[in-house]
Amino acid sequence: MASTHDRLYLPGPVEVAPEVLAALATPMIGHRSAAFGALYERVQAGLRWALSTEQPVYLVTASATAVWEMAVRSCVRERCLHLVNGAFSSRWAKTTACNGKQADRIEVPWGRANRDLDALREALATGRYDAVALVHSETSTGVLNPLEAIAQVVAEFEDVLLLVDAVSSGTTLPIEPDRLGIDILLLGVQKALGLPPGLALCVASERAHARAETISNRGYYLDLLEFRARHARHQTPTTPAIPQIYALERQLERMRAEGLEPRYSRHAQLAERTRAWALERGFALFPESGYEAVGLTCIENTREIDVNALAGWLQQEHHMVIDRGYGKLRGKTFRIGHMGDMTLEDLEALLERIDTWLARAG
Amino acid sequence: MASTHDRLYLPGPVEVAPEVLAALATPMIGHRSAAFGALYERVQAGLRWALSTEQPVYLVTASATAVWEMAVRSCVRERCLHLVNGAFSSRWAKTTACNGKQADRIEVPWGRANRDLDALREALATGRYDAVALVHSETSTGVLNPLEAIAQVVAEFEDVLLLVDAVSSGTTLPIEPDRLGIDILLLGVQKALGLPPGLALCVASERAHARAETISNRGYYLDLLEFRARHARHQTPTTPAIPQIYALERQLERMRAEGLEPRYSRHAQLAERTRAWALERGFALFPESGYEAVGLTCIENTREIDVNALAGWLQQEHHMVIDRGYGKLRGKTFRIGHMGDMTLEDLEALLERIDTWLARAG
Repeated sequence: MASTHDRLYLPGPVEVAPEVLAALATPMIGHRSAAFGALYERVQAGLRWALSTEQPVYLVTASATAVWEMAVRSCVRERCLHLVNGAFSSRWAKTTACNGKQADRIEVPWGRANRDLDALREALATGRYDAVALVHSETSTGVLNPLEAIAQVVAEFEDVLLLVDAVSSGTTLPIEPDRLGIDILLLGVQKALGLPPGLALCVASERAHARAETISNRGYYLDLLEFRARHARHQTPTTPAIPQIYALERQLERMRAEGLEPRYSRHAQLAERTRAWALERGFALFPESGYEAVGLTCIENTREIDVNALAGWLQQEHHMVIDRGYGKLRGKTFRIGHMGDMTLEDLEALLERIDTWLARAG
Repeated sequence: MASTHDRLYLPGPVEVAPEVLAALATPMIGHRSAAFGALYERVQAGLRWALSTEQPVYLVTASATAVWEMAVRSCVRERCLHLVNGAFSSRWAKTTACNGKQADRIEVPWGRANRDLDALREALATGRYDAVALVHSETSTGVLNPLEAIAQVVAEFEDVLLLVDAVSSGTTLPIEPDRLGIDILLLGVQKALGLPPGLALCVASERAHARAETISNRGYYLDLLEFRARHARHQTPTTPAIPQIYALERQLERMRAEGLEPRYSRHAQLAERTRAWALERGFALFPESGYEAVGLTCIENTREIDVNALAGWLQQEHHMVIDRGYGKLRGKTFRIGHMGDMTLEDLEALLERIDTWLARAG
């Protein structure tokens, strides 16, 4: 297995530890049983710790994309202001629009951060917005938006909720949703949490629930208030992805053993090493300086290498999978994910192989 | 493990075979990779066979509940007629309403089948309905609705789509969605398919897609047209529950080895045996005669036994889990699920234990 398994260096899904994979295979239990309630409570305690929150953390059996829809259907009455700077923030805005809500945008070119706080303040001062929606770490471009500064501006406007996608940032660095006043914080599990896909997480504030109470047509499957009602009974509204919850429980134990601060340091070290490596090799970083994501590095192909050939060689010869660039950036960039359980040794093994290829490609 | 694991005789989640559980732990792959495309195609071929359809079978990372929402958001313009006779059919109607669509009902008491074809025809003749929504096997009451007769009536009305929940019926008996003109057929995987929860299936007709093209505010996560677009590339719109797809692949191989007809026969035999056992012991069946589900039996507690005590004893002493009755039927009924991989031997082991308890309880 070790020799033929393709090791993932993707910005999600990421490589999953064998013992976490094994936890998926725990025999099933009924989701209305006492055993499930106990599992739910254990996982809640772990998630509150891992995500630095006292708020409930809902287990949504879906991709994180679904929680975009959950956030806007439950928290946006009419109009949402989307900070857009890449494929995912753009798709969130589209999701809002195709749910019949107005989705206005403050948009900057791919590679730039949404850091024009004056424009944000001016837009919110119109009083037209129910919420601001923001992708913290834009996985398509590797840009990290200045969440704390944005949150401070949003906090100046009492009725504006803050909806944050932390899909490729959550647990790579501290976020503190309660202190920042984040009303919806959403994560997938197949990225920084180092788990297999099939579950998403939603941290929801009291204000988010209060807002939902004023909004109709929230739907059923992704209704914030249904999650709250079942959460009080240590349950999910509908049959959950029990295998992923067992894996989450196991991974939270492993995260406790590592500790949050060491986990943040490890991720910082992986990101610094990848950035330094890229710059030393004569590549540029795609994100503007000072706004690079921690969970992945998006490298601009300034050396005009054949990214397809590199990625194909890595996979065929070394069973290592990197990303060839998202959408319109395909080949013009390549992305290395360094989230979850990755170690510096894992990363060095990849970089060494790329160096070998670059030396041959001349 | 064998001695302490609680064996599930629930109407879902059901007991899962160890080799299917083990398939969950297959190492992850990227969901935009060639390897995923090949997995997707293999699973499609298996599902078209298992569900007797030539239509695409979408893999929805969600509970089956979400596909109720998918069906009504993509296929109902204004008004849906719901055939209601239990908790699940009622909740589907509520789901339609809380998505801002009109949900009218033809409702009969719990335990009865929706078999008033004249009432159905009369309602549809008003021309007010975009679709009829029906739960084939009402898991809360163990009632099997006469799908074929209902489908024939709906087929008399050209513009009316037929939306069918086959969550606890699909693969326990033949359904043939293409022949019956079913436009949306939805299943969960944690019931008759014998898999762990976390994935739902949606068979969609060409008419369903054509209808979706005329409807706005379909949302994104559960939009039928997004599924069709990605299906053409052997992908899902968003990151799927890859572990469950590996388990599904394995289970489809096992189903092929058994064969569909033997599988239907086995399920029929399990249902007949459970019904005969209940009647011989002086219980009644909760469903009206002739409309009993195949995947589960809902037994009316006419002997007024202490269902809680029975279920508790079965679990504590024998590690067997049965259901104590759904919602308002708790204690007034109890339910035995006999879906998925269950054998007659498995079932007899349970019934023997219940007989022991009944003899002691006098």
